[in-house]
Amino acid sequence: MRTFSDRLMDAVDDKQTMVCVGLDPRLNLIPAFLKRESVSKYGETIEAVAACYLAFNKGIIDAVKDKVAIVKPQVAFYEAYGAPGVKTFEETVRYARNAGLIVVEDAKRNDIGSTAEAYSSGHIGEVEFWKGKTRVYDVDAITVSPYLGFDGVQPFLDDCRNHQKGIFILVKTSNPSSGELQDLPHVVDCPSMNDMREDLADDGTAPLFSKKRKFGEAEKVTVAPNYVSLALNVKTWGDDLLGERGYSSVGAVVGATYPNEAMVLRKTMPKAYFLVPGYGAQGGSADDSMACLNSDGYGAIVSSSRDIDYAYRTEPFCRNYSEDSFDRVAAEATSAMIDALSKAMKSADKCPW
Amino acid sequence: MRTFSDRLMDAVDDKQTMVCVGLDPRLNLIPAFLKRESVSKYGETIEAVAACYLAFNKGIIDAVKDKVAIVKPQVAFYEAYGAPGVKTFEETVRYARNAGLIVVEDAKRNDIGSTAEAYSSGHIGEVEFWKGKTRVYDVDAITVSPYLGFDGVQPFLDDCRNHQKGIFILVKTSNPSSGELQDLPHVVDCPSMNDMREDLADDGTAPLFSKKRKFGEAEKVTVAPNYVSLALNVKTWGDDLLGERGYSSVGAVVGATYPNEAMVLRKTMPKAYFLVPGYGAQGGSADDSMACLNSDGYGAIVSSSRDIDYAYRTEPFCRNYSEDSFDRVAAEATSAMIDALSKAMKSADKCPW
Repeated sequence: MRTFSDRLMDAVDDKQTMVCVGLDPRLNLIPAFLKRESVSKYGETIEAVAACYLAFNKGIIDAVKDKVAIVKPQVAFYEAYGAPGVKTFEETVRYARNAGLIVVEDAKRNDIGSTAEAYSSGHIGEVEFWKGKTRVYDVDAITVSPYLGFDGVQPFLDDCRNHQKGIFILVKTSNPSSGELQDLPHVVDCPSMNDMREDLADDGTAPLFSKKRKFGEAEKVTVAPNYVSLALNVKTWGDDLLGERGYSSVGAVVGATYPNEAMVLRKTMPKAYFLVPGYGAQGGSADDSMACLNSDGYGAIVSSSRDIDYAYRTEPFCRNYSEDSFDRVAAEATSAMIDALSKAMKSADKCPW
Repeated sequence: MRTFSDRLMDAVDDKQTMVCVGLDPRLNLIPAFLKRESVSKYGETIEAVAACYLAFNKGIIDAVKDKVAIVKPQVAFYEAYGAPGVKTFEETVRYARNAGLIVVEDAKRNDIGSTAEAYSSGHIGEVEFWKGKTRVYDVDAITVSPYLGFDGVQPFLDDCRNHQKGIFILVKTSNPSSGELQDLPHVVDCPSMNDMREDLADDGTAPLFSKKRKFGEAEKVTVAPNYVSLALNVKTWGDDLLGERGYSSVGAVVGATYPNEAMVLRKTMPKAYFLVPGYGAQGGSADDSMACLNSDGYGAIVSSSRDIDYAYRTEPFCRNYSEDSFDRVAAEATSAMIDALSKAMKSADKCPW
């Protein structure tokens, strides 16, 4: 059976690029003429916001659909405008899929098992309906946050299997403070925390939450950052969801802004596809992204949002184009990113095409 | 200035209970007569699902509004049905707030800074609008997942301050697998991971993601579970948002199912309000919840969803009532929970009323 990862790889081969275009509409950044059109039709309402977001997205999708295989709408920007915003999200997904694109929803959902099931069924599976079941958002893949552990991930794994969908689990995110929790070095094979608590109860004086532990003279302590523990879980969870082409439909989010960590994670999860944010505006370069690829040139998709969606507002484009050409400029910016990554792939001897 | 925490405590005093009722509509569990009414009006559509969810919620809210101070809709169940579901969520929030209830949205949102800002502005703040700004969901507080660190939390803190709202950050969740990441023992004051990576590069043979480290003969290693590190951050972030009554508007989610951990966390974050899920269906008892309270009897709200919403389907209620009385039964189940917690509070000498 062809998995999400198989579909993804075929689509990437077809376009010969791993670039993914983010669809992040923001009211203060999208072209004024689109806003005027929406307001003239709907007044200064929330429906008008939703309408101009949809028009903007359609422009970007039409402009990039022949160049890239994947788009990534960030649902935060849509749900911020309530039900009308969510309707635009649904219509954007439909429009992109009808254009032959793979849609990765950036949602970072997470909850306990029974609630994670509700998220998963709505976004990548099927929800209970009047007779049988129905699909709602029907995206191809979704990002998932791992703070709650396996029982919050399992419903997504089930839907990946049953509906040929994919997930990307946050492992090492692209933002500056990602290390606060993700990089904390944990002790591997430490005595259980229950034992620790008993020790604490015994003395009762030291801070309740920690404990000096002596590891005998000859002993060594093995430590690893939390993201490695996560990565090992992602690998385990993904081993059951391998496609014909050798990659898993359980992927990982690994920021382009942390190439050293990416190198470690690439070896930890050799069969996981990486969704790589942080390219461009956040500081990650094409060369930085190479650490996310395996030697076969597969294993990563690299995403950019602001630098493409709003390229028309930046140098050098804003000198040569008016805002009416936001879509044409997005296409140019996409081509530039594709070229930069192709060049880096060839330099790294990781180009499969 | 009165903060969210002040409002919360006044409301809890008014009702003399810390019980919070979850609003988790599920199509296969809500009464058949509500479904028939919706289908007769909207056909077997997704709008009919949204309509019977709203009718169900209004029934529960009307039944419990004089008994409790807080309701907690879990947004997963609403957004699973797309824009119509989200509209019902918005209407539920409005209905509950108009009934004088405090609304805690269980959403567990998380993202990098600029995207977290979009989540925060939509849910507890104000979004950009045609002229100025507008409020969308306008809940009183929202749950937030901490995997991305401070820059993903900061926008929520700003909105808490500017709009007298609150957040509850996941620290120790109620589900069985919460310990996988949350309980990992991390080394306190470990050499930075950058140093570790240099060591790794030197030998190159050991698994890339970990390193045996020798801590000299006389040295000791201090370890703490990840949730403690999180708790210390929550404390720090919350110290700037203390209300007149001494508690912070930056709270923590601490499951009733882990009373030992709750005891540690209560001491780590003395001024944080705890949102305590896991009561009832998940296995947490009234006595278990006492660990979440400070000695003044404040500092926690205890939430139950399934056991109240669907009490009409369970013993002994299902023998004595038909499904038409789902709301009356929810009120009875709520009273029983209030009584159980009051009794436990008195036994623990933690009842302020």
